[in-house]
Formats: sequence, structure tokens, C-alpha cells
Amino acid sequence: MATTQRGGRERVPPHPDIRTISLQQVLEALVDPVRRLIVSELYSAPDALSCGTIELPVSKSTATHHFHVLREAGLIRQYYMGTSRMNALRRDEFEESFPGLLGALMARADWA
Amino acid sequence: MATTQRGGRERVPPHPDIRTISLQQVLEALVDPVRRLIVSELYSAPDALSCGTIELPVSKSTATHHFHVLREAGLIRQYYMGTSRMNALRRDEFEESFPGLLGALMARADWA
Repeated sequence: MATTQRGGRERVPPHPDIRTISLQQVLEALVDPVRRLIVSELYSAPDALSCGTIELPVSKSTATHHFHVLREAGLIRQYYMGTSRMNALRRDEFEESFPGLLGALMARADWA
Repeated sequence: MATTQRGGRERVPPHPDIRTISLQQVLEALVDPVRRLIVSELYSAPDALSCGTIELPVSKSTATHHFHVLREAGLIRQYYMGTSRMNALRRDEFEESFPGLLGALMARADWA
């Protein structure tokens, strides 16, 4: 099952089944430029990234909110590695539910 | 030039050059479900549609606002035919600037 959580199970926030995510939720998540920046960083990273390694033009608590919205919209998976909260794009699952959408959006130079 | 306006020139509102439209503007336009409904109707219509022929779950003035936002985001072209304000999707121009985006979005059953 794709929503299996890895490591630090008790601290891992719940992840929605991506099949329950609506286009409305996805658009509300991606209409925010900071959230698009996060998705962009995760898209081009070879591995998951901890929250702290993604430079964002907002406060830490605002950043946490943005990660939360992305998780709720099925775009990212979060898990702990030691004390670091890691973030990975749910790329394959997302592609299955929203074929071509991320590619079409990220093809734009003004994506993020 | 693609932005040439047809008919009733003096009453035709200005249309932006689609190359000046940002992804941010497009996402802000399409995040609204009523605006997606308008785009959907225009997408599947063989010809331009007058504002009154698109059934929307909002008041006339709210509908006018939604058409305005879509026009400003480069998604639709408006022109007069007699006393009717007609609306057409700028499909080819939009596809050139945002390849694959409308198709990826409208493939979703919950698009509108």
C-alpha cells in the first residue's frame, strides 16, 4: 500500500489516500507560490529533503503550514529520520491520479 | 494578431496578450469551481456562447465577475454579437503558452 509510513511511526502525521483527493484541493494547494516552490525543490531533489534544507521566504511556522497543506492535498509524504522531518513528493501516485498535471505546470519557467 | 477583436469594437473589453499571462494568474482563475464550469462549457461547445446560455449557480453580477477574471487570465475572448456578449475559449493560444495544462485538468471527472 502506497500510504505505508516509514520510520518513527508514532510521530508521522496521517497521509490521505490520494484517490480521495479532489482537483479542487490540488489547485488550492498549488495556487500558492511558496507551496509551488516546495514542490519544485522536491521534484528536482534525488531524495527526500528535510524541512530545514528547503529555503523559503517565510517564517518557520508558516513553512510548517505550507508543508501541512501539501501533505493534506496528497502531494507530499512526510516521515521522520532521527529528529528531522523529511519530505518527499508522492510523484508516482500523484501522476496516476492527475496524469500530466505536474509536468504541465512545472514546464512553465514561472512555476516557482 | 491573435488579440484582434471581432465585432462591436467599441464595446469589446480589452484582452491581454496571452504571453504576458503568468501561471499564477491562470491558477488563481482556475481555482474557482464556477470559473472551471464556464471553461468546461466553452471547451465542449462547438461555437462561442453568450453569457446567458451558460447556466451558473451564481447571480448575474457574480457571473459577470467570473467572466472578467477568465478574460484577464487570457482564458476567454469576449465580443459582442448584436446585444449578446459572446464568450469563446482562447484554446489554441492558451495551449501554446500552457501546453497540456487544460487537457490535464479537464481529464479529471471532478474538474467542474
